[in-house]
Amino acid sequence: MDPDAVAKAFVGHYYNLFDSNRANLAGLYQEGSMLTFEGEKIQGVQSIVGKLTSLPFQQCKHNISTVDCQPSGPAGGMLVFVSGSLQLPGEQHQLKFSQMFHLMPTPAGSYYVFNDIFRLNYA
Amino acid sequence: MDPDAVAKAFVGHYYNLFDSNRANLAGLYQEGSMLTFEGEKIQGVQSIVGKLTSLPFQQCKHNISTVDCQPSGPAGGMLVFVSGSLQLPGEQHQLKFSQMFHLMPTPAGSYYVFNDIFRLNYA
Repeated sequence: MDPDAVAKAFVGHYYNLFDSNRANLAGLYQEGSMLTFEGEKIQGVQSIVGKLTSLPFQQCKHNISTVDCQPSGPAGGMLVFVSGSLQLPGEQHQLKFSQMFHLMPTPAGSYYVFNDIFRLNYA
Repeated sequence: MDPDAVAKAFVGHYYNLFDSNRANLAGLYQEGSMLTFEGEKIQGVQSIVGKLTSLPFQQCKHNISTVDCQPSGPAGGMLVFVSGSLQLPGEQHQLKFSQMFHLMPTPAGSYYVFNDIFRLNYA
């Protein structure tokens, strides 16, 4: 499968889980995983999912504008860079965001998120 | 030196070179380096610098809003995620952008850019 197709499939899967039931994102992180969310550094699957599920909204909808990917080196990782906008309940305007993921291969032939950095792009 | 300080120093150095003389960015890339610029994939120091120096403006000024960094794995790499805005000559409004760098260590104890992904964030 070509890397761009893997990246797009991952991005679709990730935001579908995020927008339907964030707790299910736990399957995509591992103990060594890192999240930097609006500058706050969080490590480990439990802390990361704890952060994501405690965000102060119930429902949201990510709209993806661009997905770029590159191989990250000999370990078989892949960098995925996303831009898009985020619709929150009760908000008239969408929030623009950028996010990057560093995916690492699992022994089972899948990927998990080793690095995750999220930023809102304020106007 | 702590990683956040390294990331900030790199970012200051990179955009200072970009805004003063883009050709000097050649020293920060190597043959295996990859750039994805607005979706266009470019590889190798010569092609990357050729792309950057051929952008259709002479002068520009990057204003950095946020710099986030994380270690990328056991090889000693570092992921640097930047958001900011870009002032081009003759343009009234700044363009918002996001960019990520994957820095890899050199034998001399410095870093080079292995991965570089750049996107404008259109309103």
